[in-house]
Amino acid sequence: MPAVSGHYSPMIVPEARKKMEAVLGPDYFSTRPEDLVLYGTDASNQPDFRPDAVARPATPEEVAALIRLANEYRIPVIPRGAGSGLTGGALPVRGGLVCVMTRFNRIFEIDADNLIAVVGPGLVTADFQAAVEAVGLFYPPDPASRDFSTLGGNAAENAGGTRAVKYGVTRDYILGLQAVLGTGEIIETGVRTAKGVVGYDLTRLLVGSEGTLGVITRLILRLLPLPESKETLTAWFDDLSDAARTVAALTAARVVPATLEFMDRASIACVDDYLHLGLDRAAGAMLLVETDGPPAQARAEADTVARLCLENNARTVKRADAPEEAEAMWRARRAISPALFRAASGKMNEDIVVPRSRIPEMMVRLDDIGRKHGLQIISFGHAGDGNIHVDVMYERQDPEQTRRARAAVRDVFAATLELGGTISGEHGIGTTKREFIDMEIRPEVLSLMRRVKTAFDPAGIMNPGKIFPGP
Amino acid sequence: MPAVSGHYSPMIVPEARKKMEAVLGPDYFSTRPEDLVLYGTDASNQPDFRPDAVARPATPEEVAALIRLANEYRIPVIPRGAGSGLTGGALPVRGGLVCVMTRFNRIFEIDADNLIAVVGPGLVTADFQAAVEAVGLFYPPDPASRDFSTLGGNAAENAGGTRAVKYGVTRDYILGLQAVLGTGEIIETGVRTAKGVVGYDLTRLLVGSEGTLGVITRLILRLLPLPESKETLTAWFDDLSDAARTVAALTAARVVPATLEFMDRASIACVDDYLHLGLDRAAGAMLLVETDGPPAQARAEADTVARLCLENNARTVKRADAPEEAEAMWRARRAISPALFRAASGKMNEDIVVPRSRIPEMMVRLDDIGRKHGLQIISFGHAGDGNIHVDVMYERQDPEQTRRARAAVRDVFAATLELGGTISGEHGIGTTKREFIDMEIRPEVLSLMRRVKTAFDPAGIMNPGKIFPGP
Repeated sequence: MPAVSGHYSPMIVPEARKKMEAVLGPDYFSTRPEDLVLYGTDASNQPDFRPDAVARPATPEEVAALIRLANEYRIPVIPRGAGSGLTGGALPVRGGLVCVMTRFNRIFEIDADNLIAVVGPGLVTADFQAAVEAVGLFYPPDPASRDFSTLGGNAAENAGGTRAVKYGVTRDYILGLQAVLGTGEIIETGVRTAKGVVGYDLTRLLVGSEGTLGVITRLILRLLPLPESKETLTAWFDDLSDAARTVAALTAARVVPATLEFMDRASIACVDDYLHLGLDRAAGAMLLVETDGPPAQARAEADTVARLCLENNARTVKRADAPEEAEAMWRARRAISPALFRAASGKMNEDIVVPRSRIPEMMVRLDDIGRKHGLQIISFGHAGDGNIHVDVMYERQDPEQTRRARAAVRDVFAATLELGGTISGEHGIGTTKREFIDMEIRPEVLSLMRRVKTAFDPAGIMNPGKIFPGP
Repeated sequence: MPAVSGHYSPMIVPEARKKMEAVLGPDYFSTRPEDLVLYGTDASNQPDFRPDAVARPATPEEVAALIRLANEYRIPVIPRGAGSGLTGGALPVRGGLVCVMTRFNRIFEIDADNLIAVVGPGLVTADFQAAVEAVGLFYPPDPASRDFSTLGGNAAENAGGTRAVKYGVTRDYILGLQAVLGTGEIIETGVRTAKGVVGYDLTRLLVGSEGTLGVITRLILRLLPLPESKETLTAWFDDLSDAARTVAALTAARVVPATLEFMDRASIACVDDYLHLGLDRAAGAMLLVETDGPPAQARAEADTVARLCLENNARTVKRADAPEEAEAMWRARRAISPALFRAASGKMNEDIVVPRSRIPEMMVRLDDIGRKHGLQIISFGHAGDGNIHVDVMYERQDPEQTRRARAAVRDVFAATLELGGTISGEHGIGTTKREFIDMEIRPEVLSLMRRVKTAFDPAGIMNPGKIFPGP
């Protein structure tokens, strides 16, 4: 191989650099230090890594050409949407080429007759939602990051969100896709119809694979008719266990709300410190509930929700009478993540799931774990599907606290698994959870997953250092 | 290897036979001719094959022990539920060991609080549905064979049914599973929670893999609250295109019925010849529609359906006023398959899907294809999701007709793909469609699928001769 020279890093030799630049042209291939800094970070807020180069392709053929070169020169390829993932999926932990997919931002087609859309993976989730809602259609998955996250990133992480309790997650809305494998081959999977069982389900294998099998270059998405109306309400409880009982009562009453979120006492206080909304700080828990559908049905369901909240000792139940009131209710819920950033210099942000009925038990366990390690643990999230965002708060500069926070996270995962849960509901494993994955996945299954990866990416260049434990 | 002797076939040498019998005991391992005949057939009605032995294990450990022996002695293993599949998935086309899973018929758990059930794969679908409905819960997938098909078979084929338009298919209700790989390893995949993204989605990879990756030994299923009520109606049209326009109008009106089935003129006549129900034989098409949910909503939706049928030139619309009337409406729809068996000595039964809006175009193509080959083509199925059951009728004893029927099927698939569809919505590929799979799946994707298979089944013993084209 030729000797390394110039300001770019040693991983991409000049010959490879020249060929990659020739694929994209100089405007879309960069080794400038400022680009390497920018694309060395993501929303997981980890110590910076540096890629060796940044590519911004615009066609599947360009992606394929880059990956063929990466194969030839054994260069890691890190696919990236908006970098809004919380588990480090977009970080170039072993250097290499960050492949930024934001130029793939076209809506090729919105087919209202067949409730299908075909889009590029670089499209921002909220932009797509606005486009389909403008024609009376609905794309339910709504991760908290939807204003900047991309549909391709949502697909790679199988993003969830607040509407999963009724509508499911990203996986449930991807009918088919186009991707470039680790071999550089462009493949098409799935269908553009409601059903399809021809060969193995490679679509859903690529969904949630965190960029370790290939790069998604097109998505065929399923849409629904836009619900005609929605009703929003909040309920405040003295005690979290009353809120949890309400959730169980809703299931028993056959009500499946579109959204069923909760905040614990600490997250209520944290948000109120941040935004001064005058929240009920004496409350032990808040539920935020939305029902949707034809107006009569959405109202009837909201009536049932309100009644069940009161029957389960809610201090107060507030119905939103206008969209602005609903928006105000959402403001508190949406502010939790930014508020938590101010509450301590570090937070380990997890997204465990337990069977819905075990939420109260899990909350007790979280209290115990916080006490044991002398750290504050703040919880909020998706009560309807048992998906709890658990934030272990600590001071980053304090190595002892950092160590304890990590031990607390391990205890949180152990308790989660003991209660029949999973260590990640919607954020994936990435880098932050790979040291814990073998708590949930047995060695023979991890080994099978590695063999599956090899089928897609024989040279092991796709997003190395993610999901799988190891050095 | 020891010499072959005895009445069993040469593939399983006496040494292997002895070891397999030792795993199960003599009652559950058979090489009796009558068992070999029985387990050489399935509902795909193909010339008989013969397995070399039949095993009826009862535990995952027994299955694992059998598969380890099958690996050692290179014996094909053919997993089988009820044998109700229509594409030959359960046929021992290369001999070997049929592994009958019907003793895995336990319901381990129905968890109403978390809307989850854990079951054995040998449980009959309708028995499970009855068990969950008895406690106010709902398992929506309902293949036509549900009275005898097993949940494991449904999972292996990703079975659909009449409720897929609103509720999705089997894949959408499987949260996790236990399976024995082609290596003999027992693995657990997925979660028992509403969400989960830890590692690759092996659950949905096994679903629809037609027994070629492993044997499913347990299923974790998602349940819904049972809808409180339903409304059933039939609408009769002069012309199929009016029925198709009604389907489009329903989408535009944001109505998603629980069921939206159609029968064409030929299937109406065929059923009436069979059951003498006094159907409207002058009609060109019938729609059978069900709406469900809270009573007011189900009624309101049924009102909208009735109105839209009439606006789109329905000759008559009949609402069922009592469950018996609804049952009578279903009788015609359910009788199609048996009725078709009487209409000709052979039918090639396909289950294509086209985007819903292309149904009228597809029906014209089917007419053309029938005329071109001089064969009757009868169509019915799931209008709501574009899934059309296309039966090419022919006389089995006539080699020339058989040849033409096969050519017609190829034309049907070509037209389907041209209209953006898929060659199988819910039956899978099995043996009957493997010679056509490369019309839909490109060689590099088939080759990727073969590599994925190797990751699960390195020796290639799991259900050989299925899905993939070749000798």
